[in-house]
Amino acid sequence: MKFTTLKDGTATAIVNETSIPLSDLGFEGSLLDLIKNNNGQLSQIEQQLEQHSGTGTSVSTKDFAAPVRRPSKIVAIGLNYMDHADESQMEVPDTPLVFTKFTSSIISATDTIKIPTDLTQEVDYEVELGVVIGKEAKNVTPEEALEHVFGYTVINDVSARDLQFSDEQWVRGKSLDTFCPIGPVIVTSDEIADPQKLAIGCSVNGKTLQEDNTANMIFDVATLISELSHSFTLEAGDIIASGTPQGVGFSRKPPVYLTPGDTVRTWIEGIGELVNPVEEA
Amino acid sequence: MKFTTLKDGTATAIVNETSIPLSDLGFEGSLLDLIKNNNGQLSQIEQQLEQHSGTGTSVSTKDFAAPVRRPSKIVAIGLNYMDHADESQMEVPDTPLVFTKFTSSIISATDTIKIPTDLTQEVDYEVELGVVIGKEAKNVTPEEALEHVFGYTVINDVSARDLQFSDEQWVRGKSLDTFCPIGPVIVTSDEIADPQKLAIGCSVNGKTLQEDNTANMIFDVATLISELSHSFTLEAGDIIASGTPQGVGFSRKPPVYLTPGDTVRTWIEGIGELVNPVEEA
Repeated sequence: MKFTTLKDGTATAIVNETSIPLSDLGFEGSLLDLIKNNNGQLSQIEQQLEQHSGTGTSVSTKDFAAPVRRPSKIVAIGLNYMDHADESQMEVPDTPLVFTKFTSSIISATDTIKIPTDLTQEVDYEVELGVVIGKEAKNVTPEEALEHVFGYTVINDVSARDLQFSDEQWVRGKSLDTFCPIGPVIVTSDEIADPQKLAIGCSVNGKTLQEDNTANMIFDVATLISELSHSFTLEAGDIIASGTPQGVGFSRKPPVYLTPGDTVRTWIEGIGELVNPVEEA
Repeated sequence: MKFTTLKDGTATAIVNETSIPLSDLGFEGSLLDLIKNNNGQLSQIEQQLEQHSGTGTSVSTKDFAAPVRRPSKIVAIGLNYMDHADESQMEVPDTPLVFTKFTSSIISATDTIKIPTDLTQEVDYEVELGVVIGKEAKNVTPEEALEHVFGYTVINDVSARDLQFSDEQWVRGKSLDTFCPIGPVIVTSDEIADPQKLAIGCSVNGKTLQEDNTANMIFDVATLISELSHSFTLEAGDIIASGTPQGVGFSRKPPVYLTPGDTVRTWIEGIGELVNPVEEA
């Protein structure tokens, strides 16, 4: 199933470009509520969805807010594709390199990325597979890990490189308002047979700049969840941004940075795409 | 006024070591709800409190949970006291050095700090003034900044130094479960005449190791809020951990690290103290 939240706040299933609100399917609450309190409701909703087949209202991604506006935390992973670690001229870490983006940076699949040009001149794109935790994970094994996944989404980990590197701590440069497009939907894990076999890419103004496959992650999703859960509790509602493949702007010669007027497209096979225009803040 | 949340989930005012639940004072909801939706309720609650004088139930800090269990974000500030920057042998930053702690690390004023000894052998204490945002702040001036504060609390920014420095990004070493004692209460800003005139300290097993005054912050609270709000939106419910004074364990010769059996006490004048035992996880 695919779920998102509409701009009017309605939590909804998405079926063939139509919206069937969760409240019509017997669930009252936000999508984050569903993720956090997912005790068998998913199979009920699936049954209800079959009964409501064909009753949806036509919608487009322009109607979508971020599926989850304020997840409990975003656990972001650096340098998780070998070719990207190489292009960044950074050493491949022994354990997942954890950083974060503040949730106040989240926008929707079609919202505008706004660049505060007084703060940064080096804004970069990074397409990433977002892993939405559906069940608390603490000290889980890689074998158990995927049972803790509610679903998957697309994240653009927009990054102000000048702030990121001058601060040394990355969180500010990663967390400017509008620097975290997420969506367009969360696809439940039963529909993603293997999270390590998904084409993933990013284009700016129609020119493809990242094109890879999640098969090339250094730490796959199951290993990430297991490793992270040995450091801290992953809670239902947390989102892991699992790292970006090669092709980011700051490693290109000459560098490619986002500027007002650009359009960034990020996509992952089986989930969908984000299409975010860029403007000056 | 002083507010906290009891271990049974009750949001409550604290008056002379007694508890008067917010629901008795005409407010239904969590303390975070009050902080986020503070449109005049505070003055109503203050009036109600006068009428309910003497009706409270006796409580101790052992009955307290963290005042806010899952704030929207923790914005932590590094190197914000000159003597601490010196002892850390790090350069004083031109702008506030931002990092974070995941909210899943939060515990109460008397809960146990649990050290996963397989992960870290260098666990340090850091007493900090916590600033609780009560009104969204974006691009505010230092003069306006304090109007955006709901209140103040005590934070112990417990830090696994080995992880912090080997990861380079600090968030994992700062976010192990139980590594963020907060409380015992949030004191509303009207009761803190000047947040830059508060004695602040920390002791381990009765020996005072940090003892300073918030007067010695490099970026005072108003400047912090203003500067941060130029990078990202501070939302009602966010907590700023405003940095620690000198005397932390890793800078001592020999270093002082927390070990199972220790008791850490952190305090700030006018707010209260956290007394957290230390055990192996």
